[in-house]
Amino acid sequence: MANLEPTKRDADTKTPGDGPAVILVETSLAENVGMTARAMMNFGLTDLRLVRPKCKWPHAKAISASSGAHAVLKEAKIFDTTAEAVADLHRVGATTARLRDMIKPVQDPRGWAGTMRDAFAEGNQCGILFGAERVGLHNDDLALADTLITVPTNPSFSSLNLAQSVLLLSYEWQMAGGAEVPTEIRRKGRGAALASQGEVFDFYEHLEDEMDKAGFLRVKEKRSRMIRNIRNIFNRAKMTEQEVRTMRGVVVAIAEKKWRKEDF
Amino acid sequence: MANLEPTKRDADTKTPGDGPAVILVETSLAENVGMTARAMMNFGLTDLRLVRPKCKWPHAKAISASSGAHAVLKEAKIFDTTAEAVADLHRVGATTARLRDMIKPVQDPRGWAGTMRDAFAEGNQCGILFGAERVGLHNDDLALADTLITVPTNPSFSSLNLAQSVLLLSYEWQMAGGAEVPTEIRRKGRGAALASQGEVFDFYEHLEDEMDKAGFLRVKEKRSRMIRNIRNIFNRAKMTEQEVRTMRGVVVAIAEKKWRKEDF
Repeated sequence: MANLEPTKRDADTKTPGDGPAVILVETSLAENVGMTARAMMNFGLTDLRLVRPKCKWPHAKAISASSGAHAVLKEAKIFDTTAEAVADLHRVGATTARLRDMIKPVQDPRGWAGTMRDAFAEGNQCGILFGAERVGLHNDDLALADTLITVPTNPSFSSLNLAQSVLLLSYEWQMAGGAEVPTEIRRKGRGAALASQGEVFDFYEHLEDEMDKAGFLRVKEKRSRMIRNIRNIFNRAKMTEQEVRTMRGVVVAIAEKKWRKEDF
Repeated sequence: MANLEPTKRDADTKTPGDGPAVILVETSLAENVGMTARAMMNFGLTDLRLVRPKCKWPHAKAISASSGAHAVLKEAKIFDTTAEAVADLHRVGATTARLRDMIKPVQDPRGWAGTMRDAFAEGNQCGILFGAERVGLHNDDLALADTLITVPTNPSFSSLNLAQSVLLLSYEWQMAGGAEVPTEIRRKGRGAALASQGEVFDFYEHLEDEMDKAGFLRVKEKRSRMIRNIRNIFNRAKMTEQEVRTMRGVVVAIAEKKWRKEDF
């Protein structure tokens, strides 16, 4: 096993949250994780997250393929679910070659990099989801994203290697920042910040719990699709913290036929 | 040895000279040639040239790493010298991480892609030189180029994988040609049409009626503001007809603790 000791990071890449998280879902090949780490570090990104990696972890092949980006691998976080991996993020993009049957804004890597820079300037954390090598992201993963990201490839040969996709997004992030990243985080007013995905999930679960109690989701085959559809509606709304509290209050009020101050 | 038979090329990538030549000098790893071919084809490039490859050629590993970009490999041309490889080109860029003691214009990939598009529009052929994995291009190779190309990487971790460099240049070539992705995916089929404002208002009134019944809107001074806030959330979601029906079903279910098919 190659050395996994912490490597001293350079000043440019030290601060947590100084760039988007790269989230690999069910990656099969350790080499691809290593090449992803290299591509990230080439453009100053360090926040790598692995959801249910299909390769052993840690893995010597990842280390050798990273060509020295050990710090990124060493600090990679492992998650059981995509939902947990994005819980602290405010904006989430999902890379996909196939634009599926789903209502979402779509951006190319350049557009999404600009979106993320704007979000960061307002103190919001961002992340990018990348699916498994052959099959890409599940629909349930796509439902967790507010934006789909598509690279304008040759339509007859569109499948990008995983690390190549990461590279393009990392590169565009860098390009969109010029030489500078914002040095000051500014929020406007209490509750005006975008809700984190964790707060949004709590709302979803609350809502779905009430729907379950009402028997709304009782048809088993339709349940997950129905939930996905409803989550997609709220995802598109990109709610603020205050708005999530409001919506929770709405659900409580309607479900219990009374308004309780302590609920929101 | 994998199949090296000519593959039928698609119309987009057929014409010779419809994009810049990618010229790899003294490449060591056949996998890198294969991944280069894949990256090229991802963005519609087909003219691959190899100067003194250090790997056996053709090579099974190149073919497997190309993930199907066989046509590019099959038609790759081999040269003894870089000078011969660029003889038919009018503009030549050389990729280098280190900006050496040489008087040349320097561009980033985006700038160089624009330069090449301009050159092509005037009937001039272009090419991009890429050096060997560890050492990059010789000074003699750089001397054959009219422009140096540097990717703005993290200064403390600047070494890009060879195929990654090819990818960035191919991608910027494609982007400079005005590649576009759709800006939004809309579901197709029944119920996929955007809901009319009338349908959306009916939903609002239904929701607000339930909120009133629950006493949620009883504080008069805040009522209109609260209603406005909630309407804004759903407004941003730009719901389809089907989604409005779904949300109405959700409200009925939660409010009445039972699911009635006739409601949505």
